[in-house]
Amino acid sequence: MADAAASAILPHFRRADLGTENKDADGYDPVTVADRAAEQAMRAVLADMRPADGIVGEEFGAQTGDSGLTWVLDPIDGTRGFVSGTPTWGVLIAVGNAAGPTLGMIDQPYIGERFWGSDGMAWLKGPLGEDRIFTRAPRHLSDAVLFTTFPEVGRPVERAGFEAVAGRVKLVRYGMDCYAYALLASGQIDLVIEAGLNSYDIQAPIGLIEAAGGVVTDWSGQPVHDGGRVVAASHPDVHRAALDILAGYI
Amino acid sequence: MADAAASAILPHFRRADLGTENKDADGYDPVTVADRAAEQAMRAVLADMRPADGIVGEEFGAQTGDSGLTWVLDPIDGTRGFVSGTPTWGVLIAVGNAAGPTLGMIDQPYIGERFWGSDGMAWLKGPLGEDRIFTRAPRHLSDAVLFTTFPEVGRPVERAGFEAVAGRVKLVRYGMDCYAYALLASGQIDLVIEAGLNSYDIQAPIGLIEAAGGVVTDWSGQPVHDGGRVVAASHPDVHRAALDILAGYI
Repeated sequence: MADAAASAILPHFRRADLGTENKDADGYDPVTVADRAAEQAMRAVLADMRPADGIVGEEFGAQTGDSGLTWVLDPIDGTRGFVSGTPTWGVLIAVGNAAGPTLGMIDQPYIGERFWGSDGMAWLKGPLGEDRIFTRAPRHLSDAVLFTTFPEVGRPVERAGFEAVAGRVKLVRYGMDCYAYALLASGQIDLVIEAGLNSYDIQAPIGLIEAAGGVVTDWSGQPVHDGGRVVAASHPDVHRAALDILAGYI
Repeated sequence: MADAAASAILPHFRRADLGTENKDADGYDPVTVADRAAEQAMRAVLADMRPADGIVGEEFGAQTGDSGLTWVLDPIDGTRGFVSGTPTWGVLIAVGNAAGPTLGMIDQPYIGERFWGSDGMAWLKGPLGEDRIFTRAPRHLSDAVLFTTFPEVGRPVERAGFEAVAGRVKLVRYGMDCYAYALLASGQIDLVIEAGLNSYDIQAPIGLIEAAGGVVTDWSGQPVHDGGRVVAASHPDVHRAALDILAGYI
């Protein structure tokens, strides 16, 4: 499915507005075209190989199945990165049941990086090879690296909650889209805090990060596979430290 | 030189803090080790092939030459991105004279992307192949995409100037380090505005972007190859529109 999505997306990546011949006036919106083509390509794989499973996709909605398994698809997570040429967008694929995802994948086909995990094991296949990945060892917030899509997303109280944690960590970085969750799963950073997510934005990160050893919940510590305010952490201790601060902003 | 730098850097990328065995207590700081090794590797190439040229490097300072040419090197631009595992750092290489750079290269060896330009022509060699690159066609600020390292860098008046422009554009993105200049050179975005840069941060972007058709100056429209406040634009019209706003914050 990720290969099929990549083939559908890459011909459109960085093709926007390169000259007057590609202006919006022509009606060509690369991210919309790529988004829809990629979800159709993934659904075609499922129709062939997993016809009894349910599907929830960003572009084409929900399709009920009777196997008890549902695939949750976001063909291009991070469309603002995509339209800016930044390789921080990703193809998100998750599968699970009503209790949440049991497998999650974040695929970045321009770089050629694939992060995936299930059943307590996670992997990265990328430019430097393929290997198991693990979330990093716990540390105090004062040594932690925090990523978010803020300051672009979130209501004022949500931004205040984020900033309360941001003021306690060593380093804050912005604008990485779903790539931030891949960095968390692969042991590079400690926290991702966001708000306003949809189920298809977060199910693949949940499946991946939990398999790599991390924790993903809402700001109250409850399951977040239906979307909302997300705190993803490398370790239960780091997660608890962030929740203790965010409790003041719920 | 870029190949030599990549060989020195990649063994250290994403090796920080992956477990207790790599804690800072061991004295291993991957970014410092990689930074120094890469600059030494590039200086070794110059000592062999261009011994009469001058060198200015971030890590090992200035070395006078008598050829009239000076190489300006930043072995890892974007160290905060590097320590977070984000592939938005780059190896910056420029060569020029007292009037500024005549060639500039931004190399991102993890992705395998090399952007370079001189004498009015610029190229990208990357995962999808090698091709000429050009800055994008001019557009109104209301349709423009602006990148910066802000909100992390800059004094209050500088941040206010940035935000005055940010309030007029279509999309603002953060945290891309030198990769933002590569996106500008390759026609993906319209503006980069920053402050507090050093000569070794900006000379390679200047050489690359000017070769691709763009404009790079300080906030007063003056040459910026010695560093300071930078506005880089896809086209003289976009550059002028940004300067008109920034004039209120100098």
